[in-house]
Amino acid sequence: MPYIEAGSACTGEGERRTISRVTDLGLDATITSFARGVQSDVDLALECGVDGVNLVVPASDRHIEGKVGTTRDGVVERTVELVDYATDHGLWVEVIGEDGSRADLDFLVELLGGALEAGADRVCYADTVGHAGPDEAAEAVSRLAELGPTSTHTHDDLGLGMANTLASVAAGADLVHTTVNGVGERAGNVALEEVAIAFDHSYGVETVDTTQLYDLAGLVSRYTGVPLPPNKAVIGENAFAHESGIHTDGTLKDERMYEPYSPEKVGRERRLVLGKHTGRAGARAALAEHDVEVSGANLEEVVSRVKELADRGKRVTDADLLAITEDVRGTERERRVELLDLTAASGGATPTASVRLRVDDDERVASGVGSGPVDAAVSAVREALGSAADAQLDSYHVDAITGGTDAVVTVEVTMSRGDRTVTVARSDADITRASVVAMVDALDRLLVAGSEPVPADD
Amino acid sequence: MPYIEAGSACTGEGERRTISRVTDLGLDATITSFARGVQSDVDLALECGVDGVNLVVPASDRHIEGKVGTTRDGVVERTVELVDYATDHGLWVEVIGEDGSRADLDFLVELLGGALEAGADRVCYADTVGHAGPDEAAEAVSRLAELGPTSTHTHDDLGLGMANTLASVAAGADLVHTTVNGVGERAGNVALEEVAIAFDHSYGVETVDTTQLYDLAGLVSRYTGVPLPPNKAVIGENAFAHESGIHTDGTLKDERMYEPYSPEKVGRERRLVLGKHTGRAGARAALAEHDVEVSGANLEEVVSRVKELADRGKRVTDADLLAITEDVRGTERERRVELLDLTAASGGATPTASVRLRVDDDERVASGVGSGPVDAAVSAVREALGSAADAQLDSYHVDAITGGTDAVVTVEVTMSRGDRTVTVARSDADITRASVVAMVDALDRLLVAGSEPVPADD
Repeated sequence: MPYIEAGSACTGEGERRTISRVTDLGLDATITSFARGVQSDVDLALECGVDGVNLVVPASDRHIEGKVGTTRDGVVERTVELVDYATDHGLWVEVIGEDGSRADLDFLVELLGGALEAGADRVCYADTVGHAGPDEAAEAVSRLAELGPTSTHTHDDLGLGMANTLASVAAGADLVHTTVNGVGERAGNVALEEVAIAFDHSYGVETVDTTQLYDLAGLVSRYTGVPLPPNKAVIGENAFAHESGIHTDGTLKDERMYEPYSPEKVGRERRLVLGKHTGRAGARAALAEHDVEVSGANLEEVVSRVKELADRGKRVTDADLLAITEDVRGTERERRVELLDLTAASGGATPTASVRLRVDDDERVASGVGSGPVDAAVSAVREALGSAADAQLDSYHVDAITGGTDAVVTVEVTMSRGDRTVTVARSDADITRASVVAMVDALDRLLVAGSEPVPADD
Repeated sequence: MPYIEAGSACTGEGERRTISRVTDLGLDATITSFARGVQSDVDLALECGVDGVNLVVPASDRHIEGKVGTTRDGVVERTVELVDYATDHGLWVEVIGEDGSRADLDFLVELLGGALEAGADRVCYADTVGHAGPDEAAEAVSRLAELGPTSTHTHDDLGLGMANTLASVAAGADLVHTTVNGVGERAGNVALEEVAIAFDHSYGVETVDTTQLYDLAGLVSRYTGVPLPPNKAVIGENAFAHESGIHTDGTLKDERMYEPYSPEKVGRERRLVLGKHTGRAGARAALAEHDVEVSGANLEEVVSRVKELADRGKRVTDADLLAITEDVRGTERERRVELLDLTAASGGATPTASVRLRVDDDERVASGVGSGPVDAAVSAVREALGSAADAQLDSYHVDAITGGTDAVVTVEVTMSRGDRTVTVARSDADITRASVVAMVDALDRLLVAGSEPVPADD
């Protein structure tokens, strides 16, 4: 039976509406609310129609005396009363001993043992501040698990969230508190996706449908505004990316060479990326995707130029690889689309832009409006190209900008046309210019790939 | 004695220059290069003047047969030859059994035992693909540690990088491979900062000077272009941020209430942030920093409006808190600076902008140029305000933009003047407008705080 703590009813009206919407879904799960050790919090949880409460009571002296201003006996007494109250109202009750990892263990056992005797369904070992190591977690959980069903709640302040989760389960815990993407106070809680995949892969224990994990991560990231770290298990952009020469070479020979489990297991795909570790096999494979074949000394030179670009701290896209290859071969490539001039006006009510493009032997000028300078310029480019701009803008990404208003901005666009896709990254202190140059260069690549003339404007 | 693997000499010319610069520093550490199991890689490492090599040889059948195309006996033979060669050239040698976690353990012991007999200084258990659980890591390391000094190399594909590191050390490993910020192939390696703080806090074992960890993380993030995740131990923006009501309230009573160790330990400061969990204590403390005191029903209303804003998915800054407070109190605040008009032209060689501002009872118009539309507009604002704009722009941050060229952009600026600091976040589909509105609103806040008139333009 899955448990979903849908929120904390005492937080506010908006939170209560959210919890109620979850309880209304009729999910095949026990829906709970977090509640502090006060009756009003339990009442607010009841208002939301939850099945249960995660009742938090102070367990360490620091929390008992310093925060709540009571005594150990006072907490035990209050806890029993609240468990009575909650169970009387038909609630499933988990009692969490807050700051349990810094509590006197004998008192923690007394407090949570009392809660179980009073009728609580389970108790929870809480490493609220991410203080414990796995040995301490195991010791505490094994004492609690002798008394009744025990959960574990870990934080990652020391990077030990997962280690403590495993130690807890080994010591007898049978329910793990997790959050999607590890979102939580400070360094966060242990991540649902990591617990799910670790238990599946290392212990053959099924928890959730892992194939939904990546989509879920993206959804939660968008709504919480907490970005997904590139180098993170399961959900990170690079979790299934292979760059280094031996890794790419090995992966091309055998997909499992450098992967513990397949990306499809968590709803993802494998990526080969270019960088300073790129070797011949990786470059050859990337070029093959654009129907370009290079070998021998030319391939060596292409690889060396890719490394050179990466050494300068540049992101290396497939458009860069193609440009390098043409240069190495000395094959004169005729650009079909070129940006001659760009003007964008923004700040006012109607951001407006104009572009002058060379398209084959024509010069074309067009203007457009949009929601901002980049959007206006992109619409001007589309207007100028007319039906040739039937290419899709698959993704438009700007790295976070920090450092100042004159910082160099990196824009990466991926565009596709028919069955061809190309990614271009361009950097400039002017975000409008970087965006339009990237887009025009991508369009140029896609049109060169085709052979038809670009139709004239209507 | 610390060990620094400064790079992989076989990667390319740029990498070798970097390794040579590290060896030239004369650090009190053993500087090594990664080397594949071929003599030419050892030669390239020697060219860089390293003290040692981390020699990687295939250990699993998948790598031995599928990748390198040899046999177990062939690998053992080759490894002994290479250890001989490297030690003959005066190198310290660590032999890493690649994909060791998927290798036949008896063969791994034979291979690495042979390396030690041939004169290798140490061997390394490598969970190259992040496949192992802690039990497997412990079993393998305990076998190897019987033979000689043993290192451990873990990856985080299952979120088990740290758990496996701890298990390895408990089983006898006395050297841990880490990377700053956990940067590495796929989900990355175990992070130096987490290993350092976990060993310090949980086991009282000193590794590196922890007070430098945060600055180091920022440096590595800037140079690698890999952003720091907000919810990550030690280095994350939120690692010492407290938002929820009970957390903030507790932290204000006792700094250690919700922290396992003090932020100063890793060179950082504590932050209280506003959001849907904000309670009275947190709001009161944030207002006090701006010399504003609110209590009773007004404070309740302020807290409720903060939650409401956060529920709508907005970031809540101190400027929002101040605006809400003024509104709740009905205190008519007179804006001192207001944006009446903004035009920015970009895309060409000289991004240019003009602003029309109301400053007290004056209207002021000014123009400026810059490296992009935002930079130009900021310089126009400074020009219009003249000496009143003696405020510092402490930070300018734009969230990463994904989704399309018409996506809403969130800009956050922090400005200070004298001893006052204010943060404003504004969202708009036009990045120029969002940036200038945020900056003007911050300036207005800072000028209202002072009492002097804004001097007229020169």
